[in-house]
Amino acid sequence: MLVEKKHYKMQGFTTFNGQLIPEVNIGWESWGKLNAKRDNAILVTHYFSGSSHAAGRYQEDDLLAGYWDSIIGPGKPLDTDKYFIISSDTLVNQEPFNPQVITTGPATINPDTDRPWGLDFPVVTIRDFVEVQRSLLLSLGIEELHAVIGPSMGSLQALEWAIAYPEAVKRMVSVIGMGEADAWSCLGLQQWAEPILNDPLWREGNYYNSEAPTAGVQQTLMQISLAAMSPSIINRTFNKHYPLEAAPLKDIRQGFRMVDYFKAQSLAQAKYADANHLLYLIRANQLFIAGQGKTLNEGLQKIKAECLFLPATNDLLLRPAMSQLIHQELLSLGKTSRYAEIEGDWGHLDGLNSITSQAETLKQFIN
Amino acid sequence: MLVEKKHYKMQGFTTFNGQLIPEVNIGWESWGKLNAKRDNAILVTHYFSGSSHAAGRYQEDDLLAGYWDSIIGPGKPLDTDKYFIISSDTLVNQEPFNPQVITTGPATINPDTDRPWGLDFPVVTIRDFVEVQRSLLLSLGIEELHAVIGPSMGSLQALEWAIAYPEAVKRMVSVIGMGEADAWSCLGLQQWAEPILNDPLWREGNYYNSEAPTAGVQQTLMQISLAAMSPSIINRTFNKHYPLEAAPLKDIRQGFRMVDYFKAQSLAQAKYADANHLLYLIRANQLFIAGQGKTLNEGLQKIKAECLFLPATNDLLLRPAMSQLIHQELLSLGKTSRYAEIEGDWGHLDGLNSITSQAETLKQFIN
Repeated sequence: MLVEKKHYKMQGFTTFNGQLIPEVNIGWESWGKLNAKRDNAILVTHYFSGSSHAAGRYQEDDLLAGYWDSIIGPGKPLDTDKYFIISSDTLVNQEPFNPQVITTGPATINPDTDRPWGLDFPVVTIRDFVEVQRSLLLSLGIEELHAVIGPSMGSLQALEWAIAYPEAVKRMVSVIGMGEADAWSCLGLQQWAEPILNDPLWREGNYYNSEAPTAGVQQTLMQISLAAMSPSIINRTFNKHYPLEAAPLKDIRQGFRMVDYFKAQSLAQAKYADANHLLYLIRANQLFIAGQGKTLNEGLQKIKAECLFLPATNDLLLRPAMSQLIHQELLSLGKTSRYAEIEGDWGHLDGLNSITSQAETLKQFIN
Repeated sequence: MLVEKKHYKMQGFTTFNGQLIPEVNIGWESWGKLNAKRDNAILVTHYFSGSSHAAGRYQEDDLLAGYWDSIIGPGKPLDTDKYFIISSDTLVNQEPFNPQVITTGPATINPDTDRPWGLDFPVVTIRDFVEVQRSLLLSLGIEELHAVIGPSMGSLQALEWAIAYPEAVKRMVSVIGMGEADAWSCLGLQQWAEPILNDPLWREGNYYNSEAPTAGVQQTLMQISLAAMSPSIINRTFNKHYPLEAAPLKDIRQGFRMVDYFKAQSLAQAKYADANHLLYLIRANQLFIAGQGKTLNEGLQKIKAECLFLPATNDLLLRPAMSQLIHQELLSLGKTSRYAEIEGDWGHLDGLNSITSQAETLKQFIN
């Protein structure tokens, strides 16, 4: 299944916190066909380190397909024979320098100054991601969604959609998600920000004409990778690891081979990433409380969509208890909600890698 | 119960990796009396951020008693009416600048140069901590231990004791422990090192005549604090936290009140800590495999002590599965081993804060 990145431009976007972004540019992809009534659209919202590339390949010989290729396609749970599946790159996407990502954020040129926004870019929230998606959908004549579904940070957007536009969302699927960033999550996210904030090359966000804070970005990405994986998958991946390795035993300046490998992976990943974009993404997640009102309950009350929660049993990051909490609160409000767990050994990444274990649940829910 | 810090000096210590430390100084504390046969000693080995201050107060008006005061004292599981309880500060203790800690490490003056060792200090291992303790005990005429017990990094020392000196250890208690640092633990520990390694003030460990890398130390301590606590205790502690806080929503430069509070706590904790000592402590833990031989099994085979494992059910750092693994392997080797879990809501810190939930198990095992 081939797919191409498309471009949506939006003028004069006012953020949730009341600031103006004169021009927003985002990328988007789609699979399947929009029907004449324009009521067969399913929006897929992406995770923290992801993009709109949820399925298919840009070119036949691409090594990897989009992250949810296993559930998006002809005859799959998100059936491209029936539905028009669409996904867009978020604001402040982690990888503004990835040629396959179109996003607007601190690395974007501020039309007022002709220089990158840096920290003058407004703080954006998950609601802002939703509003930009809403604008894109309206530009295509799509006023209602058959479903909205996303993993991890994508689940925050999916839930926010169901609250912000209750009439427009028929079905909402939260995969490895949460309803609000509790204190523990806020502190955990802050730890991802600290390496960048403390990298001297970060220079309060003004590094676009100098060397970028790559060491900080690398550490941040290493933390994120580690948090997304279970101990058992890490240990299976590095099953040759021996603790009492000769070099690090001999000299404190020497590292473990396995650590060096992990660091090199994060450095490679840092190539397309931007330090400020990471800080803004972290902030958007820290600020999240579904509905962006006073309480989670106040937000959930507005939902009209049928809801499905699919946390991963062995997820240590967005733990099943966090999904269970929203599910139970929805039930107690008399809403329609289902709950099932994704089994697997990956931890948080089971939301991507083991999603097919709930393919049947998903298929029934979507149809 | 009052206690005083005592001082032990040792000449010419050769480390596990074959390097010489001309002079080792460590602090120690004791509770109860050594009997005439000198066979009633119980060694308590301390955790990563701890010291020999396991029980009692230095002065009547000390705010806090030692960390295991709940189980050490007259009539308590480690009964000072019956036993001579002793604990010592480890090599490379986290807090060389704490007036109540005596330790030897990179911050210590190297007698060969009259300047702090810095990174020329040899890499030390858990076995080295044990050897220094052994030397201290022999200096007191103690050749065998009624028991050795320690939490977290202390459990590594306790297990190492039972393997290094099988004839000398009658009972071994591993509280919130592990048998070896697997790949996941090694990577997790590395994340604690990164903020220091990347702090420009760290200067490859040569900061003793300049400004110390306090920002790096603070981040490291913040990571450690967070890893030691369960999500539920963090969320209960900060139960007034509201995600969509005004200042961080308005300005990316502004932080969350709760995060600022947590950071301030870590900064206060950094006062007595040393960056290089933290790096060496992290390394000692990364290198750990009980027995410090080729395999864990090879080490466990040597044990003659009766063993007891007390992991904490909600520990996300040294998870119960890690204790279960050693316990099962000991049983399959025909050794005597018991296993029970500490219930509580603290997470890893249940090994300190909720240890009394297994007071009876401990009492029966020790007596």
